Order: sequence, then C-alpha cells, then structure tokens
Amino acid sequence: MRYWSKKAAAIDPYVPGEQPRQKNVIKLNTNESPYPPSPKVLEAVKAAVPDLRLYPDPNASALRQALARRHGLTEEYVFAGNGSDEVLALVFLAYFEQDRPVRCPDITYSFYEVYASLFSVPLELIPLNEDFTVPLDKLAGSPGGILLANPNAPTGIGVSAAEIETLLQKTPDSVVVVDEAYAEYGAESCVPLISRYPNLLVVKTFSKSHSLAGLRVGYAMGQPELVEALQRVKNCFNSYPLDRLALAGALASIEDEEYCQRHLRMVQDNRAMTVLALEDMGFTVLPSQANFIFVRHPRFDGGFLQKKLRERDIIVRHFSKARLQPWMRVSIGSREEMNAFLRAVHEIIREEE
Amino acid sequence: MRYWSKKAAAIDPYVPGEQPRQKNVIKLNTNESPYPPSPKVLEAVKAAVPDLRLYPDPNASALRQALARRHGLTEEYVFAGNGSDEVLALVFLAYFEQDRPVRCPDITYSFYEVYASLFSVPLELIPLNEDFTVPLDKLAGSPGGILLANPNAPTGIGVSAAEIETLLQKTPDSVVVVDEAYAEYGAESCVPLISRYPNLLVVKTFSKSHSLAGLRVGYAMGQPELVEALQRVKNCFNSYPLDRLALAGALASIEDEEYCQRHLRMVQDNRAMTVLALEDMGFTVLPSQANFIFVRHPRFDGGFLQKKLRERDIIVRHFSKARLQPWMRVSIGSREEMNAFLRAVHEIIREEE
Repeated sequence: MRYWSKKAAAIDPYVPGEQPRQKNVIKLNTNESPYPPSPKVLEAVKAAVPDLRLYPDPNASALRQALARRHGLTEEYVFAGNGSDEVLALVFLAYFEQDRPVRCPDITYSFYEVYASLFSVPLELIPLNEDFTVPLDKLAGSPGGILLANPNAPTGIGVSAAEIETLLQKTPDSVVVVDEAYAEYGAESCVPLISRYPNLLVVKTFSKSHSLAGLRVGYAMGQPELVEALQRVKNCFNSYPLDRLALAGALASIEDEEYCQRHLRMVQDNRAMTVLALEDMGFTVLPSQANFIFVRHPRFDGGFLQKKLRERDIIVRHFSKARLQPWMRVSIGSREEMNAFLRAVHEIIREEE
Repeated sequence: MRYWSKKAAAIDPYVPGEQPRQKNVIKLNTNESPYPPSPKVLEAVKAAVPDLRLYPDPNASALRQALARRHGLTEEYVFAGNGSDEVLALVFLAYFEQDRPVRCPDITYSFYEVYASLFSVPLELIPLNEDFTVPLDKLAGSPGGILLANPNAPTGIGVSAAEIETLLQKTPDSVVVVDEAYAEYGAESCVPLISRYPNLLVVKTFSKSHSLAGLRVGYAMGQPELVEALQRVKNCFNSYPLDRLALAGALASIEDEEYCQRHLRMVQDNRAMTVLALEDMGFTVLPSQANFIFVRHPRFDGGFLQKKLRERDIIVRHFSKARLQPWMRVSIGSREEMNAFLRAVHEIIREEE
C-alpha cells in the first residue's frame, strides 16, 4: 500500500450482492426485475451501434427531455447519470460539506455511509423506530442535509408525500434527497413537491422498474439550480458518463410505459402472494412498498435460512448489522421463482423442526 | 446557488468539444475515429440485451482478463472504468493527496486541472519547452505524483519508453501516470515497464483506437497493489460503472484486433497525407504520434481559421490559452474528410491573400 492515498487506505468499500456466474440459480438477492426489458430497448440499442465511433451527448439531452415530459417537468429539472449510485455520489460533492453532518437513518441503503467516508462528509445516523419505521421528526431540521430512501431499504417501508412535505418544511436550509429507487412498487412519489421546494432532490433509477439494472442509468429531479450543481460536479468528474447505448436504451424504455407498468403490477402480485404464504409459515413480514420483502422467522435466524437456501441454489440477502441479524431480504422474482423459494423455505423449516 | 456546496460553486468544469446535432458536418474536433467499430461489436451488444435486467459484473472480470491477455498481464494488473476520464478521476482519489503537489506539463489534457480542482489536489504546472516537447527532467522527482499524456495533447508529440523509464527511476516515491489515450497511433507504449516499476500506471481507452468513443470504456494497467487502490475507490463511488453492453462491446472489439490495426494504419496514412499537404501550404505541423495534428499558419491565427472552417461545416478545435492561440488542432478523419478539409483551408487562405 506504499503508493495509496490516505483516503484509499482508510475507506471501507461497498460490497454489492453476489452476481453468480452459475446459470441455474434463483437470484433473489439484488432486487432485479424478473422480467426482461421492453423489446423496444433491443431495437434502439441496435440502431445506436453504428454511431459508436462518436462521443455521446455529454448533456444527455434527449433522455432528460423524455424524463422531464414523463414527470411534467422540463429538461433543466432533470439530471442523468451512470446509475443512481453515481448520481448519489455526485450529490455528496454537489451539496454536502465536510463540516456539516448529514442525517440519515441508521438502517438504510448502506452505500450512503460509504460515500460519506469517501468524501469525508460526517453522517448523523438516526436509529429507526422499534417497528423499523423512519423517525422523520428526528431527521428534520438537519443543517447539513438529509438522505432518505423511500421506501427504505432493506425494510421496504415507505412514507407518504405529506410526511416528506412536513420534513421539507422543517428543513428549509439544506438539501433533502429522497431516493426513490423502489418507489414505483408502491410508495408515493414526492416529485409533485419539486415545484414548491427548492431544496428537494428526488433520485430514481431504471434498474428496477424498467428491468435495466444491467444498463446503469439513474437520474435525479429537482429545481434547476439544484440540477445545475450536479451538472457542474459531473463535468469535473466525467463528461460522458452515459454511453450511446445506455442513452438509447433508456429512452426507448420510457417510451414503452405500458410495458413497464404491466410488469410492475406482476411483481406486486407476486409480492402479495409471497407475503401471504410466508405469514402462513409463521414469518413476520414488514409491510413492503418495494420489489423486495424483509422477513424473519420466529425460530430460524436470517443467516441460517440464507445458507440453507444457498445450498438449494436460491440466493437471498442477509445483513450483518446486529439488529438485522434475524432478518433476510428477499427480492420478488417471477411467480415460478417465488413458488420455488416458498417450497424450499417450507422444506428447510420442516427438516429442522 | 443557495444549496450548492462550496466545492460546486468554486469549480470550473471541463468543456468538451462541440458535439453538433447537424448531420452534414465534417467533424475533426474531438479526435474520434472516422471508421465504424468492428462488426463484432454489434453482434456482442445484441446478444447482451436479453440479460439487461441483471446487474453487470461489478469487477468487469471478463473484460479485464481479455485486456490482460492482450498486454501479457493477468487480471489483477488491469482496472476498467467508464471511459479513461472516469479512470483518471479515480486516480486522483486513489494516489494523490491534498498536501502534495502533482506535476504535469502546463499544456496537456486540460481535464487534469479540472480533476485537481474538484479533489483539491495542488498541481505544479511545468512549462513545455520552446519546441512544445515535455521537459521530463523537470517533471522527475515529484513527491506527489506525475501526470504525463503520451503522446501529449494537443501537441501530438510523444516521448520514448526509455525516457519514461528514466523518469520512473528518478521518481521512486510517487505514482507516475502515463495517459496513453492516443499511443496506438505512433507512440511507444510503456506497458512493458509495468513489471519493473511498482509506481507506474498506464491509462488507455477504447474511444480512439477501437472507434468506440460512444461506448465509454477506459482502463488502467499497473502492478496489483496500484490496481487494488483504484478498485477500492471505485467501490466507494459506483459499484457498476460499466454496463453490460459496454462490457460486451469492448470485449468483442479486443477480439477483433486485426480490424482495429487496419483502421489505425488508415488513420496514420491519412495523417501523413494531410501533413504533407499542409506543409505545402506553408503550415507548421508539430510531429504527431496521435490521431490529430497541431498546426499553425504563418499568417492566419488558429481561431480565425477555425471560424472560417466552421462556416464551411468543418469543425476543428482551437484553444484559448495564450501560447496556443496561433494553433489549431485537427483530428484525422477519413481520406475524403481530409481532402475536403484541405480544399477548404486552401480556399480560405487564397481568399484572404
């Protein structure tokens, strides 16, 4: 480590969920959609290949315009990046300071803590309530900014737009970032609040609701002055974070809204079926507005169940934080995948009893 | 700017060359290849679309392995990123400190200064020699690191691997980054030095030599300890900077080496022809080892010629730095494009004389 910066030596990198090379697994660990992207994506991507010798549009204007139209905004209200992870990293550079703590729940998307350590931004971790809901009143008024995943991860629990509006009213002096990566599966979006709150930034992604985790396209919406700060830091980091194929594919996917809505509903149906079956088996299931569920069994630890499921080629996610030990997070797959998951859980429990 | 960080307000973003929407222009301003990517790229991209619902490999292992094979290395010697611009941004986080100046030439890839301001790394700008060559002896021994584009931009002038070896020997205590974005067009690569110098990082890109500027794939090679630092900071910024289509397309392009080599030679031939014709018209042309040339006319300023060419739908690049005012940078296009460029220059000069 002789040549590493102090920063490189000190940081504790994010560990993404396993991406197995093995083909015949049931992959319920990283909240991907079980359904393929719109067929229009393939057409658009093919059409974009001949121009690959040329740089892409550094401003991603066509995509931002399409996103703006969909949300009733205009281009200057939209920022696009290489997945919402990159957008969130740039958020830290654009709005946060090294001497002003940013508040977020202690249990939430674990990448927030990683960005904070990379950019030396102090975090004030607010413990979730007993029932895993977010204590919004304790987040409110943060002088340095707020990060709120809605619905939260890995719990799946959401808050209403009205509650977020109260949070905004109590926090006029710093940026409130609402990460709506999973909102399409049931949470109420706060995009309609953007016109009234100059400090609200809403972050979204194509990874889940558009079945495009492999394309790496995320975006943020806020008033033009907020978006301009993101553009500025992006143009100091990487002029062209979105390649021509990602731009074309994401644009085609937006234009096939009906396709995406149909598959969102299928995931919601699969979720409802899975929740009922798990509750029948004695599981506690947190009320989910996401494409995953957070569940615990009264007798079997989440880590134990995860290991037993892995032996049966079913991958779910378990987190090592003390309070999360008993739980496991299960992405909602296809009907067939969820049935196989439920059969496996049933067998594991029966064998152990 | 009420909600901007001090950083967002203070930085001076990079301005990439114009990407015109107009179709019938001759675009010689951003050093793209005039030739399309290998036909194998289209096949690979099409084949990758059905899996887009799944995240890509966060470690880009297949691509890194292929790059390693091509350069006689192994995977842990290779880092891959979202264009060499992102790789260079991560270099600042991985190796440089805010209290140790990094040396680079005063005239070079202008993004280096932008990264430095974003990450608060001090730069020590070493003036180029009178003849625009890089004074390597003055770069040597930098305690904080060295950034060297080889060949340099926008001059196109390269240095030999032997000269870089001397630089490395005189700079044992900090990282020497050699940016070989354009090396395939004539400069000597210093990749063979990697095994002997633990502080050498070589950065390359698919944008030029693989005709894939629109795909955003860059990479760096160095000893495993150096590469590990890049992996660490990358995993604190964005786990998946390379999407599935970019990974598949870049991999296919590496495997069609013969195609790329043929088009590199065509660009070199077009460059030789253009240089001779410009010298016939009285231009001074710096000796270029890149896919662009840096030229000046004894009577007409670079900015003037650029404007006159733009009126004829030919775009070249002019830089505003005082010492570069008389010059213009011309990317090497196809034979037809260069003939049209030469005809236009000839006409402009004749009209004014």
